[in-house]
Amino acid sequence: MNDISPLPQGSTIGILGGGQLGRMLALAAARLGMKTHIFCPDPESPAFEVTPHKTVAAYDDEAALAAFAAAVDVVTYEFENVPARTAQFLSHLKPLRPGANALAISQDRLAEKAFLTINRIPVAPFAAISDLDRLEAELEEIGAPAVLKTTRLGYDGKGQRIVRNMEEAAHAFEVLVPHPLVLEGFIAFDKEISVVVARNGAGEVAAFDPAENLHRDHILKTSTVPAAISKKTAEKATRIATAIVTALDYVGVLGVEFFVLPDGKLLVNEIAPRVHNSGHWTEAVCITDQFEQHIRAVLGWPLGDPTRLADVVMENLIGDEIGAIPHKLVTGIRPHAYGKAESRKGRKMGHINRVAVKKRAK
Amino acid sequence: MNDISPLPQGSTIGILGGGQLGRMLALAAARLGMKTHIFCPDPESPAFEVTPHKTVAAYDDEAALAAFAAAVDVVTYEFENVPARTAQFLSHLKPLRPGANALAISQDRLAEKAFLTINRIPVAPFAAISDLDRLEAELEEIGAPAVLKTTRLGYDGKGQRIVRNMEEAAHAFEVLVPHPLVLEGFIAFDKEISVVVARNGAGEVAAFDPAENLHRDHILKTSTVPAAISKKTAEKATRIATAIVTALDYVGVLGVEFFVLPDGKLLVNEIAPRVHNSGHWTEAVCITDQFEQHIRAVLGWPLGDPTRLADVVMENLIGDEIGAIPHKLVTGIRPHAYGKAESRKGRKMGHINRVAVKKRAK
Repeated sequence: MNDISPLPQGSTIGILGGGQLGRMLALAAARLGMKTHIFCPDPESPAFEVTPHKTVAAYDDEAALAAFAAAVDVVTYEFENVPARTAQFLSHLKPLRPGANALAISQDRLAEKAFLTINRIPVAPFAAISDLDRLEAELEEIGAPAVLKTTRLGYDGKGQRIVRNMEEAAHAFEVLVPHPLVLEGFIAFDKEISVVVARNGAGEVAAFDPAENLHRDHILKTSTVPAAISKKTAEKATRIATAIVTALDYVGVLGVEFFVLPDGKLLVNEIAPRVHNSGHWTEAVCITDQFEQHIRAVLGWPLGDPTRLADVVMENLIGDEIGAIPHKLVTGIRPHAYGKAESRKGRKMGHINRVAVKKRAK
Repeated sequence: MNDISPLPQGSTIGILGGGQLGRMLALAAARLGMKTHIFCPDPESPAFEVTPHKTVAAYDDEAALAAFAAAVDVVTYEFENVPARTAQFLSHLKPLRPGANALAISQDRLAEKAFLTINRIPVAPFAAISDLDRLEAELEEIGAPAVLKTTRLGYDGKGQRIVRNMEEAAHAFEVLVPHPLVLEGFIAFDKEISVVVARNGAGEVAAFDPAENLHRDHILKTSTVPAAISKKTAEKATRIATAIVTALDYVGVLGVEFFVLPDGKLLVNEIAPRVHNSGHWTEAVCITDQFEQHIRAVLGWPLGDPTRLADVVMENLIGDEIGAIPHKLVTGIRPHAYGKAESRKGRKMGHINRVAVKKRAK
């Protein structure tokens, strides 16, 4: 089910996941004249507010999945933890874009690192950890400090511990097992950047400018564009992102997070087969934003123009920070609120883009 | 019902009219974390595809209007021909923004011209026409050629005739009566421009840059920004637009169409108390676009920043021209399709914005 002839006006895009990313994808699809159908187990999903077509059901509810597939022309998703069985089930009924292999690789840190390594893309040293003996040996090999992580379902700093010695490592092991684990070298990076890149079924690739990311409490706080990196580093990051989507025969938008080392070298930290929080700046200053770009790829359309018209800083509004809207809406600010009913601690509620009107790039 | 304290996240905006303008307003409202409820008699309304909340009913169905008012926090509209009774009925139940007086004035060309004249805003010479004798006298007074128009429900060139002599005038009179009529001097204008301006309940005003408009078959074809006019003319147009929203004590976005005379003088052709087709360029290149600006005003929020980041040409896609999407999506182009099921001749199906990436204003 991977015909790439362009879908026409009025087609229906099925989206797995009803969070803010699904919501923003649905808004972009509407701008292209498309209908959307959101599938999400949570009846309070914010994406349900931007389309009349929804399914509230579990991801393993095959009757609901079959009815969903019958109601749509193509299926995409807003999160990388779509269960493999769900992806396989749907992909036999309708085109699934991006494909199931991108999900399989990005769901498992070991599979992801193996994939990157095979494609000669630099990553931090890593090793699979099955037991304490292996952990001790690898901690010696990789060197302390290191980071012990679950191979699956980690996000926003969840499922990982920094370990400085074997005692801490043993404690982290106890906390994180029985999940499969990976030990990664701790990277003393200079900064974190990301590249959001798109590829369509015809093999066209278009990358947005690299963003420089700052985290707070393990959650992305700001993305600044342009990143304070050399032109050479920016080009290298873009080349790596392009190599990744090409190697995956990928269709859609993908986020690539990098560590920039003090000597300017790049390591890939992780990839996400979806629109990416560090690409939210694109909606304020790019001719085509990441959401439209993803929808175009999913539709089998030509990719849009990722040209950036101005410098920008995207800032996540987390928890009660959403209260800054509308009161702090001064010059140069474009807000986006996700319509979530409840603002819990650590919950991404919206973002603002601060556009540098005078100091433009180029 | 005109309290202007800001409405909070998650409020519901009721929108009368389910066409492309209502649809784009709903998309902008979603970006601000709001819900929308569309009221439209046409069950195939394109705006119904971007929210789960709709009412399909006639504008004089008071039970449906009352239920609609009960379901929303504020009411706005996408078209100036909302029946006066509908507006009054709703305005007693919930805040109606813009207010009923803006509707009353813009629905009637005579009332509009009287309002503008009273406020010392220049318009083409005009006269109410009740019978053929009056028509003959006024055609002599105003001079041929002139334009005979119905005072109400004219749009896209409908309900008007150019008359070059009394014979043509008498024929036009027969065609257009029994509607009340107005005779207007034919203006040999140099170009047509428009200013889209916003005002909120606190009296803040923000205008977008003037656009230069070209029509084809009486339908807007392109809006080009910046317009090829002097800085002085641009400032004057902005001053006039500001004077109009201030005189109306207006809340929301309003479009003002001008004729630019060969000597640079400006005449107001008409005003529209809503987002305006000639403001669709704002979504591609402004920090805040006209749709968000209207929603902010309706919510009682501070207005956004109308700064323009690049030069742009907006082109309407009419009838089968919608087929240009996605095939003509080359560099610099941002498309917007309205999701209309059927592409009839003369029907506005979408638009594209051509962004001048290199040749920026300023």
